[in-house]
Amino acid sequence: MPQLRIALAQVNATVGDLDGNAAAVVDWTRRAADAGARIVVFPEMMLTGYPVEDLALRGSFVEASVRALRGTAARLADEGLGHVAVVVGYLDRQAGLTPRVGLPAGAPRDAAAVLHGGSVVVTSAKHHLPNYGVFDEYRYFVPGDVVPVVRLAADTGGEVDVAVAICEDLWQDGGPVAVARQAGASLLVVPNASPYERGKAQARLDLCRGRAAETDAPLVYCNLIGGQDELVFDGASLVVGADGTLLARGPQFAEALIVTDLELRAARADAPPGDETADARDGTTMTIRRVVLPAPPGAGNPAEAITRTGPGAVAQPGESRPGPIWPGLDDLAEVYTALVTGARDYVAKNGFRSVILALSGGIDSALTATIAVDAIGPDRVHVVLMPSAYSSEHSVTDAEDLAKRQGIAARTVPIAPMVDAFEADLRLTGLAAENLQARVRGMVLMSLSNAEGHLVLTTGNKSELATGYSTLYGDSAGGFAPIKDVPKTMVWALSRWRNAQAERAGAEPPIPENSITKPPSAELRPGQLDTDSLPEYDVLDPLLDDYVEKDMGAAELIAAGHDPALVQRIIALVDRAEYKRRQYPPGPKITAKNFGRDRRLPITNRWREPYRD
Amino acid sequence: MPQLRIALAQVNATVGDLDGNAAAVVDWTRRAADAGARIVVFPEMMLTGYPVEDLALRGSFVEASVRALRGTAARLADEGLGHVAVVVGYLDRQAGLTPRVGLPAGAPRDAAAVLHGGSVVVTSAKHHLPNYGVFDEYRYFVPGDVVPVVRLAADTGGEVDVAVAICEDLWQDGGPVAVARQAGASLLVVPNASPYERGKAQARLDLCRGRAAETDAPLVYCNLIGGQDELVFDGASLVVGADGTLLARGPQFAEALIVTDLELRAARADAPPGDETADARDGTTMTIRRVVLPAPPGAGNPAEAITRTGPGAVAQPGESRPGPIWPGLDDLAEVYTALVTGARDYVAKNGFRSVILALSGGIDSALTATIAVDAIGPDRVHVVLMPSAYSSEHSVTDAEDLAKRQGIAARTVPIAPMVDAFEADLRLTGLAAENLQARVRGMVLMSLSNAEGHLVLTTGNKSELATGYSTLYGDSAGGFAPIKDVPKTMVWALSRWRNAQAERAGAEPPIPENSITKPPSAELRPGQLDTDSLPEYDVLDPLLDDYVEKDMGAAELIAAGHDPALVQRIIALVDRAEYKRRQYPPGPKITAKNFGRDRRLPITNRWREPYRD
Repeated sequence: MPQLRIALAQVNATVGDLDGNAAAVVDWTRRAADAGARIVVFPEMMLTGYPVEDLALRGSFVEASVRALRGTAARLADEGLGHVAVVVGYLDRQAGLTPRVGLPAGAPRDAAAVLHGGSVVVTSAKHHLPNYGVFDEYRYFVPGDVVPVVRLAADTGGEVDVAVAICEDLWQDGGPVAVARQAGASLLVVPNASPYERGKAQARLDLCRGRAAETDAPLVYCNLIGGQDELVFDGASLVVGADGTLLARGPQFAEALIVTDLELRAARADAPPGDETADARDGTTMTIRRVVLPAPPGAGNPAEAITRTGPGAVAQPGESRPGPIWPGLDDLAEVYTALVTGARDYVAKNGFRSVILALSGGIDSALTATIAVDAIGPDRVHVVLMPSAYSSEHSVTDAEDLAKRQGIAARTVPIAPMVDAFEADLRLTGLAAENLQARVRGMVLMSLSNAEGHLVLTTGNKSELATGYSTLYGDSAGGFAPIKDVPKTMVWALSRWRNAQAERAGAEPPIPENSITKPPSAELRPGQLDTDSLPEYDVLDPLLDDYVEKDMGAAELIAAGHDPALVQRIIALVDRAEYKRRQYPPGPKITAKNFGRDRRLPITNRWREPYRD
Repeated sequence: MPQLRIALAQVNATVGDLDGNAAAVVDWTRRAADAGARIVVFPEMMLTGYPVEDLALRGSFVEASVRALRGTAARLADEGLGHVAVVVGYLDRQAGLTPRVGLPAGAPRDAAAVLHGGSVVVTSAKHHLPNYGVFDEYRYFVPGDVVPVVRLAADTGGEVDVAVAICEDLWQDGGPVAVARQAGASLLVVPNASPYERGKAQARLDLCRGRAAETDAPLVYCNLIGGQDELVFDGASLVVGADGTLLARGPQFAEALIVTDLELRAARADAPPGDETADARDGTTMTIRRVVLPAPPGAGNPAEAITRTGPGAVAQPGESRPGPIWPGLDDLAEVYTALVTGARDYVAKNGFRSVILALSGGIDSALTATIAVDAIGPDRVHVVLMPSAYSSEHSVTDAEDLAKRQGIAARTVPIAPMVDAFEADLRLTGLAAENLQARVRGMVLMSLSNAEGHLVLTTGNKSELATGYSTLYGDSAGGFAPIKDVPKTMVWALSRWRNAQAERAGAEPPIPENSITKPPSAELRPGQLDTDSLPEYDVLDPLLDDYVEKDMGAAELIAAGHDPALVQRIIALVDRAEYKRRQYPPGPKITAKNFGRDRRLPITNRWREPYRD
């Protein structure tokens, strides 16, 4: 069988940075060429970043994306890389199409192009548009109806046919996968921008195996990495054989070039260039668009064809080099790395040089600080201790301990004078007095942010965000919330995991043991504990998971074994806190359903789950 | 021609309040029966309220909606109203359908039912799903493929065929309108939940005229009224003849029963009950579902048939009573009423008894306070004057003047002691010091809200929200922002309009003239004016309108005549302020594109409009 060396460029694109993203395409194509690859696959919407949201509706942006694509093709050739076939995602528009209501003229498309020899050889667009969870693509795009099949010379003589599909085209039945099979494609390559969530790596592998079998060809899945507002892309790109064998896998949350040699079915002799119509098996028809890339110099001579430039680049005929297979991270490592990646990229891509956060001695702020240090280094992390009359002694000592362990600059701003100034005038008691303390702390952080330019990190966890156990403009103040989607029980688990990691590496655990083991408290009144208002977190979190992520109604929750009285109480808390969540900063999604783009409920909402029929 | 008395129940539904909404259906059906109507039309999603957002994905909620529909049918009959045909919107599910990816089993439908004689006679669902602007219906619903055609006895003997379509089915070509024409319907009735925006009343009238002509039958357009988070529904229901004549129109922003007599084409003699397939002229086929309602007692005897219960209810054969036609509001009256409606319903539907806001003496807070008083009365509006060292004397006197004119409880909380307490510790200067003052004011409001239970109203306008000319957790703090979507120039225009209204009514103008005429200032440093940082608002607002609402790129803005340097500066301000807008409270949409559901841009976004190609 013909053999082809393919490279997957699993890289970090930045939304809107067309120049930077185009430069990355040239840079990583050079690396691919140096590694002897004849074809390199980039992620979905590589040139624009993903998701671009309403930028897709802005004519100037769409035009710039199309220009950037053409410019990239030309520049690749100028730099001697025209011989590499480059599969790259970008934002296109379909001129002439009468757009759907709500779309601008020149309907936007989530597109992929094959660049070669200085030209845009063929383009296509995503056929299946996801419009659920965090995705709103029916708002932005018209579906594609072309499956490109690109014929190129194999490394060992002969030719192969490479078909292209895009991301969601794998997740829904019919469409490009069905058409690629009908086209007899030797290989299906798929640019992706698939956001991380727990357990998704396995789901993707299972999916790719199934679709490779359907296509009857190996499948190359190249995913984006990096953070974009509330999403984190985890890479973990895949190559699977037609029989489901895992042939190569990229690392998680890191840029990488994955170079692998594939044995592929030879191109169909009876399929000339041009268009043919195919039944997409989803109620639509699509066009198979066959193009032939000019053979590189020396083609027709197998021994010549595989002699290319660059170190380690030369594969010998018959010498297949599958792999590499990066090991997958375990659950907690994966989540932790997602949080670090999300925080790091929010800081970097928004041009911040430093972050600031309040360190209470509790576990939420301890974990948030640790994530920040792992993301951008201790020199760029600033913490503030803001003890009040109700702060226990260990609050201060635990916080100081953490700052010392991690080498973070800490300062102390006692809040009593500010709290007193408000109370002198307003004479607050109860909840208002508790909230006041939290808000004074929020204001101190915002003031230091304004004065010194730090991004304020919010330290709330998902359990607290769900139940509204936080103060608007107080502990919820900030620009980014690294553990917003992390339930409290997982906050502890991640903290223990991170400490154990350090211990395994022979380093000092970054988080003081006392911050992990002590009972959680907001310390807004004497002797306050979270359990005064909430059940134990190991009871609360599974209930929240079933209500928020699984969207169970009250009857289902009770049938699932949750205490009926608790169900009623907690649901009411969650429902009532919607207005607070609406004003919360973004943070990285790690679960199947985060608060943000994923779960969209009205604030004004009289629906109360029924407890009796 | 047969004559039919029809009632449009233009009412205010509340999201999630199935019991309350069902009770309203019974109540307004009784009024329709009392007025002698044989058929009454309610708005789209009447039983659930609109939009329900992700509640559509919750199985318990969908089930409850279906139960509420059946319960309402039974209750109508129990209360002697079974003889009235009731067309009512609700949330349904299509059991057995393999749902689209992302939809729960039992795919949700935006449905309408005809209730009669205690039963649900026929149901259908919206065929065209809007997924642009503030709409996300492709996320929630499967499209309907049935057009019900309901045969009922006319008031003057004979029978008519009434077809049903839903809201967006009018706005897109093909579908129910095309099918209703093929069915030979005598009348097309359309439940709607169409959000208000400036100029939409005329667009709707034009649309209905066109669709009535296409259907070759009169068209009845019944719209919701009331506020729901960032949307306001304006009612203004319509009846137009097949020739485009406006036959009846409801009031704007008020509940009303619009009763009108229509001369209708007789039902087709050759069309028996049952299903037939029709080409929907949009690439799909739909089913015409013909049902016949049992004739009421006395049918067949025209003189009897029109003798029904209730005052003024008896139409004589041949005596057609078209109308009433409520006059439309002019532009400013319409916008002002939208803002009052939005604020009133946010307060009422979220169970607040009172509101609180900061009164600065400036025009934004003056208008916001006036809206609040018009919405819920002066006794429930609380204002706080929070002068600082930089407040001019007129700030206090203008604010006091307004409170006095409107009979609002005002209190004064000087912020110097709190500001000093922060500054003693943090030694802030410049922007940080300015923001500190705004945040102290925000904290005072939130403290009073916590202590006394008021909803905090935010007083920012759209120009300021667009450019980021506000302080996060300062003047942007609050639960609802009544003038969030109102550009500054329109803030002045509305204030002048409201004062002129009062003068016309012989009352004292509510807003002090000085608040309208003085140069705007945030008063956060000595002698500060908005024009230190921003251009004049009559230059700024048209530029913002073109950039934000019309989504023009830089080249288009310059071509449209905006100053190039200003374009560059203002665009940068707008782009940079995205993170602030994300944490802003909701407020009523009045323009073609509001900040919120309508305009969705990433925070992390390196795209900068090009000024040179």
